[in-house]
Amino acid sequence: MTVDLAARTRTPAEDEQRFIREALAVVGVGADDARDVADVLLAADLRGIESHGLARLRHFYVDRIRRGAIDPKARATIVRETATTLAFDAHNGLGHPPAKHAMAQTIAKARAQGCAFATVRNSNHFGIAGYYAMMALEHDLIGIASTDSIHYGAPTFGSSKRFGTNPFAFAIPAGEEPPFVLDFATTAVTFGKIEVYARMKKPLLPGWAVDANGAPTDDPAQAAPGGALLPLGGFGTATGGHKGFGLGLLCEILCGVLAGAAFGPELSISDATAHGGHVGHFFGALRIDALRDVAAFKADLDRELRAFRSSAPASGQERVRVAGDPEREQEIVNRRDGVPHLPKVWEVVDELAAELGIEPLRRRLSS
Amino acid sequence: MTVDLAARTRTPAEDEQRFIREALAVVGVGADDARDVADVLLAADLRGIESHGLARLRHFYVDRIRRGAIDPKARATIVRETATTLAFDAHNGLGHPPAKHAMAQTIAKARAQGCAFATVRNSNHFGIAGYYAMMALEHDLIGIASTDSIHYGAPTFGSSKRFGTNPFAFAIPAGEEPPFVLDFATTAVTFGKIEVYARMKKPLLPGWAVDANGAPTDDPAQAAPGGALLPLGGFGTATGGHKGFGLGLLCEILCGVLAGAAFGPELSISDATAHGGHVGHFFGALRIDALRDVAAFKADLDRELRAFRSSAPASGQERVRVAGDPEREQEIVNRRDGVPHLPKVWEVVDELAAELGIEPLRRRLSS
Repeated sequence: MTVDLAARTRTPAEDEQRFIREALAVVGVGADDARDVADVLLAADLRGIESHGLARLRHFYVDRIRRGAIDPKARATIVRETATTLAFDAHNGLGHPPAKHAMAQTIAKARAQGCAFATVRNSNHFGIAGYYAMMALEHDLIGIASTDSIHYGAPTFGSSKRFGTNPFAFAIPAGEEPPFVLDFATTAVTFGKIEVYARMKKPLLPGWAVDANGAPTDDPAQAAPGGALLPLGGFGTATGGHKGFGLGLLCEILCGVLAGAAFGPELSISDATAHGGHVGHFFGALRIDALRDVAAFKADLDRELRAFRSSAPASGQERVRVAGDPEREQEIVNRRDGVPHLPKVWEVVDELAAELGIEPLRRRLSS
Repeated sequence: MTVDLAARTRTPAEDEQRFIREALAVVGVGADDARDVADVLLAADLRGIESHGLARLRHFYVDRIRRGAIDPKARATIVRETATTLAFDAHNGLGHPPAKHAMAQTIAKARAQGCAFATVRNSNHFGIAGYYAMMALEHDLIGIASTDSIHYGAPTFGSSKRFGTNPFAFAIPAGEEPPFVLDFATTAVTFGKIEVYARMKKPLLPGWAVDANGAPTDDPAQAAPGGALLPLGGFGTATGGHKGFGLGLLCEILCGVLAGAAFGPELSISDATAHGGHVGHFFGALRIDALRDVAAFKADLDRELRAFRSSAPASGQERVRVAGDPEREQEIVNRRDGVPHLPKVWEVVDELAAELGIEPLRRRLSS
């Protein structure tokens, strides 16, 4: 019973955001930067992407700062700038503030010039890519965001970990219809999925992972830690695994090589918690009215999205949803009922509050 | 024996190119436009993408022109232009000339401004997307190309055909290493693959197709014509099919809605041969030195690509190849030995030559 109740424990969004800001303040993060981080983590939790929200506060951010792996006071600087492009160096600070700043500047340049791109080097985990792409929506721009990551995936017909989960996000505003928001890892699944199946001792699905020899495996113990994730499209080329691998490598070229950030063996590290200053990001924005009247575009995109959303479902399925729909529907529930967290997340968060000497998030719930 | 020999019949690249130009000239295509088409079709055949080369000359281009579905004399016009963007109307002409022109203009604008995008509306099938993305390589730009297509694919958990094979292509220049060239359909496989399996009466692989109810099927007769292709990532969401669907829809938004071209039901036509003037394209270019010194970028990309190409292969595999490697390796063979075509392609080409009153391509081979 305790577990069941705890499993359903929810926190109001505002409280979670305040808690994250307070926790980061204790370890030396400035108020503005802490607010940026809290905004992005909360957005992930609201959208139902629990792996990228409060659950990561301790291990990905607070602990790395306390261990000196991330500099909480770092300020991003501009490395190169043109009328349509910007390259930043985040100097091993938290990833969210420079990412938000870089996307804001990309938007400003795209508004002025029609399109723009930016890169960030020497950064850290920036949360969900979709957050930054979605910043473009209110400006009638198409937004693009991507980040590379430490390596979990094996290339097509390869046996060693050579690329990360390497997400791409695209956000496109419609008129009356909710926007198109595509935010996806270029591996078939994330590493967390393998861990969950390992705990449940359930066989993996075909197309998820390979063992240490690069052979397909359904055994979670063979997939991790010795094996690797498969790219979107699965093993080999027959179901398109080489396409997912291509997208994953594209991400590492843009966010790693083009950004002047780490790439290749530098991202092949086994201890993610020791990680700092390696990750790079890539952002883009395109002005819709540079190519077409915005009102006409939105009216047509409404028709397009409506046609998909109302199209015939497969037998046994309720309806067709387009990219961003599940997350938006989850956000409506979570804003109303509060953000749910699993018991193990609550444990970590309670422990963290005690260590940092701030009011526990759960105590606020009962008051 | 005859079939075996015919199966291996190859033609020198120059002869094929000349044949395509002559055939198009007979049906009223101007010399410059015919050369553009021939360049793109030959590039596909050289790169081993036989489905997009000479094999399509008759049914996709010549026959549609003769039937009045494509206007061989159409000239693309500019609909909207800014310093970084261009929107074209192809007025139902052949797809390749306006696509090549749009990409050339995108490159010119990106060279001047840092980045640029273009769309083309009212166009037709433009061949391989990779051709246009690769035009950026010699200018030290990152090239992007995409096109939508008539509908073969079912959305995730949907049962009706709602999106096309909708390819994206990205080309990125390296230094000493061959470039990164990713050109992929966002469906798991193309419709042609289903047809081949239907002829061979072989069961389809999981993740390729659904039947008319949107249920996964391994029966080619259920997949076509009543069923549909699955997006990259396969059926449902467990192996990431929603990601491939998202990419397919992204393509139709950029090439259809943003271009002001056809989209949705307008592309849901059953008779592809009656098709004309519906397709749209999307092009982009990004100047590498706007974000990073080109020499440093290329040296790093060389290291990155080399690391992949020399990484440990899976058991039973020879080596790891990155996007563009198989096609480049095929091109070396085909330039040396000639472009191979299947017997049925030769039959169609011979017939076409007779109808158009031009010298058959096969006769040239023996002379």
